[in-house]
Amino acid sequence: MALPPEFHDIARHVNNWGRWGADDERGTLNLVTDEVVRAAATEVRRGLRVPLALPLRADGVQAGLIPGRIDPLHTMVQINQEVFGPGTVACSDDAVTMGLQAGTHWDGLAHVSHSGRIYNGRPATTVTAHGRAEFSGIDKAGPVVSRGVLLDVARAKGLDRLPGGYAVTPQDLTEAEEFGAVTVRPGDIVLVRTGQVQLCLAGDRHGYAFPSPGLSVRTPRWFHARDVAAVANDTLTFEVFPPEIADLWLPVHALHLVEMGMHQGQNWNLEALSTACAEETRYAFLLSAMPEPFTGATGTPVAPVALL
Amino acid sequence: MALPPEFHDIARHVNNWGRWGADDERGTLNLVTDEVVRAAATEVRRGLRVPLALPLRADGVQAGLIPGRIDPLHTMVQINQEVFGPGTVACSDDAVTMGLQAGTHWDGLAHVSHSGRIYNGRPATTVTAHGRAEFSGIDKAGPVVSRGVLLDVARAKGLDRLPGGYAVTPQDLTEAEEFGAVTVRPGDIVLVRTGQVQLCLAGDRHGYAFPSPGLSVRTPRWFHARDVAAVANDTLTFEVFPPEIADLWLPVHALHLVEMGMHQGQNWNLEALSTACAEETRYAFLLSAMPEPFTGATGTPVAPVALL
Amino acid sequence: MALPPEFHDIARHVNNWGRWGADDERGTLNLVTDEVVRAAATEVRRGLRVPLALPLRADGVQAGLIPGRIDPLHTMVQINQEVFGPGTVACSDDAVTMGLQAGTHWDGLAHVSHSGRIYNGRPATTVTAHGRAEFSGIDKAGPVVSRGVLLDVARAKGLDRLPGGYAVTPQDLTEAEEFGAVTVRPGDIVLVRTGQVQLCLAGDRHGYAFPSPGLSVRTPRWFHARDVAAVANDTLTFEVFPPEIADLWLPVHALHLVEMGMHQGQNWNLEALSTACAEETRYAFLLSAMPEPFTGATGTPVAPVALL
Amino acid sequence: MALPPEFHDIARHVNNWGRWGADDERGTLNLVTDEVVRAAATEVRRGLRVPLALPLRADGVQAGLIPGRIDPLHTMVQINQEVFGPGTVACSDDAVTMGLQAGTHWDGLAHVSHSGRIYNGRPATTVTAHGRAEFSGIDKAGPVVSRGVLLDVARAKGLDRLPGGYAVTPQDLTEAEEFGAVTVRPGDIVLVRTGQVQLCLAGDRHGYAFPSPGLSVRTPRWFHARDVAAVANDTLTFEVFPPEIADLWLPVHALHLVEMGMHQGQNWNLEALSTACAEETRYAFLLSAMPEPFTGATGTPVAPVALL
Repeated sequence: MALPPEFHDIARHVNNWGRWGADDERGTLNLVTDEVVRAAATEVRRGLRVPLALPLRADGVQAGLIPGRIDPLHTMVQINQEVFGPGTVACSDDAVTMGLQAGTHWDGLAHVSHSGRIYNGRPATTVTAHGRAEFSGIDKAGPVVSRGVLLDVARAKGLDRLPGGYAVTPQDLTEAEEFGAVTVRPGDIVLVRTGQVQLCLAGDRHGYAFPSPGLSVRTPRWFHARDVAAVANDTLTFEVFPPEIADLWLPVHALHLVEMGMHQGQNWNLEALSTACAEETRYAFLLSAMPEPFTGATGTPVAPVALL
Repeated sequence: MALPPEFHDIARHVNNWGRWGADDERGTLNLVTDEVVRAAATEVRRGLRVPLALPLRADGVQAGLIPGRIDPLHTMVQINQEVFGPGTVACSDDAVTMGLQAGTHWDGLAHVSHSGRIYNGRPATTVTAHGRAEFSGIDKAGPVVSRGVLLDVARAKGLDRLPGGYAVTPQDLTEAEEFGAVTVRPGDIVLVRTGQVQLCLAGDRHGYAFPSPGLSVRTPRWFHARDVAAVANDTLTFEVFPPEIADLWLPVHALHLVEMGMHQGQNWNLEALSTACAEETRYAFLLSAMPEPFTGATGTPVAPVALL
Repeated sequence: MALPPEFHDIARHVNNWGRWGADDERGTLNLVTDEVVRAAATEVRRGLRVPLALPLRADGVQAGLIPGRIDPLHTMVQINQEVFGPGTVACSDDAVTMGLQAGTHWDGLAHVSHSGRIYNGRPATTVTAHGRAEFSGIDKAGPVVSRGVLLDVARAKGLDRLPGGYAVTPQDLTEAEEFGAVTVRPGDIVLVRTGQVQLCLAGDRHGYAFPSPGLSVRTPRWFHARDVAAVANDTLTFEVFPPEIADLWLPVHALHLVEMGMHQGQNWNLEALSTACAEETRYAFLLSAMPEPFTGATGTPVAPVALL
Repeated sequence: MALPPEFHDIARHVNNWGRWGADDERGTLNLVTDEVVRAAATEVRRGLRVPLALPLRADGVQAGLIPGRIDPLHTMVQINQEVFGPGTVACSDDAVTMGLQAGTHWDGLAHVSHSGRIYNGRPATTVTAHGRAEFSGIDKAGPVVSRGVLLDVARAKGLDRLPGGYAVTPQDLTEAEEFGAVTVRPGDIVLVRTGQVQLCLAGDRHGYAFPSPGLSVRTPRWFHARDVAAVANDTLTFEVFPPEIADLWLPVHALHLVEMGMHQGQNWNLEALSTACAEETRYAFLLSAMPEPFTGATGTPVAPVALL
């Protein structure tokens, strides 16, 4: 079952292979220049800090639908241990086992392949059990700091949250820009709010997972036209789920990660940011969303923070 | 073997219990105000981004000296898996098991206790295997973003790195301030560079661990007097190791974490930052060092970034 | 809320503390003598081998009710890796993270405490995060091989499986002995079949967990009177659940593990054994159920096999 | 670099593909019949039980030479937790992360491939990150119980242990048979003692790993001629290491696992068994060495026990 022509048609328009050289492993993060960051810092007007990560805990995001993507098993390996003898200073240490994509995370560029290729045309077979992602591992992303822009699609429509299964369109993005009186610029990291994460916060992990609003297969062209550096949202699936086109699963993943080389963020909690932006009537900010540099990983937990 | 009088004497001077209320779980991070962050953002003059985390990998920081603090075991749970059928978009997913204090990390306030107490006078027994840290877990830290100041003690002394076992003194800190033409202010996060991490980067994990330069037991009063929000450095042990006073192990940990309620960072790679600050002749910057919000954890990996 | 008098009354009758010396860490496994094993071997008349472990996999026994007791996360760390160069012999290696009590397992004696004590009167505080079980860790159990006896309570009653919440009584055990024409002897390992595991095998993990048939608080005296070496059954909870006496949770665990020093097995699949014994009309066999010798562990996966 | 002709020559002689049908996943374990087990039970003359597993602990067998094959990280997830309220019975639970081949283990048939094939001619590509070993996973081995025979090569030669790098020959095996006055029969599980594990027991993990005595590439024909069911020994590498033929790495693994379909055991502690057999002057016994049934795994920890 090959990918349909309409997928390949979009792919052709958004493809960035070779744009930053044959050796590139960072994709659209190359669009974040010193100048972009310098300008982004000027968005910090109040000194507010809004964290965007969900808690990392056993009772977390995952509902067991994705094999192996387990919520954190967090255990203590020492508790008030007087390592150097009775009466001395005591230490507690912990360990964790978790799926790197379990909670609030970045998808690395090697997270997805199609037609045997990952970003920049490299063979998908360069991802192995032994070496993990030889190319475009999350450790190759480098610093992820830029201007962030919240496109609050739910609020722009006057909704608490978009309905399950709603496909966010390019038109929705443009309207959210207008609602926020903000213009997406090259190098920006765009956060698209659906409100879906409210279900997760309320403990309904299955409802959160499915059906989910998310990005339409038509939005990658919108992001590509604006030279966006990365996109994150507040859903498990990132793109609308179930998909818009029968039997075409995860097309947005394939377009963003493989064709464009654009990192994606999922399970971001944008609720407090939505409130803050509404109160400030400003939808741009400095965003720091640093990957944990797991060598060769296809994803990473991230604890993003918006400064405004 | 009780802690010696000189420890208790310092403890008395730096103790912050109750300062932010009996319910406080954040300690000196309370010193980071909106105003501090607003001012910190003005330090971003060039738009440079300098990441400060070591790679997270099996061949990492740990030399096996600390039981249970294992370097990341990073495994693939899916590799180019065509989840939705042959010819569809394929996914790769990974999982990790690691000590939360294994690599570049923050010590949470509950990481250490002495005399049966953690920060703010709470019983050490509130840390349990089942619930982990009931109080002052790393998830309670909130956003960790502020002005960062590099006190480049090694460079100020004209050294590549301080000798193993060298105790960094208050005088050294003051001289590094002067060298950097910077004044530490309330709410700052101070990064103290010894150069010791060079041994780790060169693959000498045992040499990196021991003997190590690090903070003297006399420095907590210096940090307390300046109302510093947090301190990190480029060593495994944070404080000088072996210790300055016979049989007094980890006194700086106990003073910072328990008495002051001040988070500590270890295994931070300050080499590139040292170069950047020297080139810029500026030692202050915006620092984002967000904890991963593991519920009830006593530490967390962190991927800090300095913006200058 | 102290344990009720009726608990302490039974405890007094079945207590084995000091019976094998103040230093003993094995409890009733001491009852398995060379002679018992020699006689057990004569039960191997056909050479049949019946394995009693459930599969170890992500989609296993646990329904998420017991925090931290996770089903195996089994991952590949190498797949057909030509470790020594192209064209050489290739290796695949795997790793696992799991709760030691997640699947078919033995409870070690240190798994449970009451009134601050574990087996043989040792303080419960000898179980720590750092050292795990200092006394009676599963590695201290030694070989677990003896005559096994199946008490097929369900079949003896003409039932496929006992109803959820049914408490297996001493009378039931005696009737199952009679049904099997077998007499429990000192040193035997007794397997009590309820049929409940059928729910687990059918994929109903919640139904399997609760409500569950299981041993009545009155059965420890029966096992004690016969000097049984260990007891296992085919349920998650081992004892009847919810419990027979309001607010008296896990009394059988406390009587067996703490008072008697008798290891318990849970989640054993006794279905094929039930069929084999019925066909052979023999309910005794040689049982090998070796603990994996995790140092200081309070439990262990086990892959038991009945030879008959 | 293809495998050399002498490898293929041996492979041709020992190949068992198709011998037990095209669907077979158990290989030479098919040679263990009811009759073999019935006869094996008669070897239990004294009722002795000799366990053969090394302790499972952080300070275990692995010296870090094999990426991802980590010794057990054993952590507590509950310690004396009064799950049902204050004063109730308290539970301790543990979890583990480990390489399945880290300690005393069985290699499953899918552990090794050569020339793109695993046992019975199946494609090596049937081992994946997602599904693990689709064929001949360790869960397919079934019960591993048979007559065990100790070939005590070291003792037969009057040595405590064989020198590092010594290749055990077919002649050595025959002499050990004669020394033990035992004849290897079809379906037997053969344990070959080199004494090398003494180095591991003494804490010298590197010396234990390399150089190591082990089986010569000429022994698979000896095992094949006798229709042995499985072979285990007391080394990390199983076969002599470094190898006998330049650039021919792991040939015995490839011959046993891929060509013959014969499970291999490594890191077995045969010291106490050597003593027991010498005292009894009997080198045959009942051996139970049950795999933990990890679905699709390429190996498993095992806690073998010899009964004699």
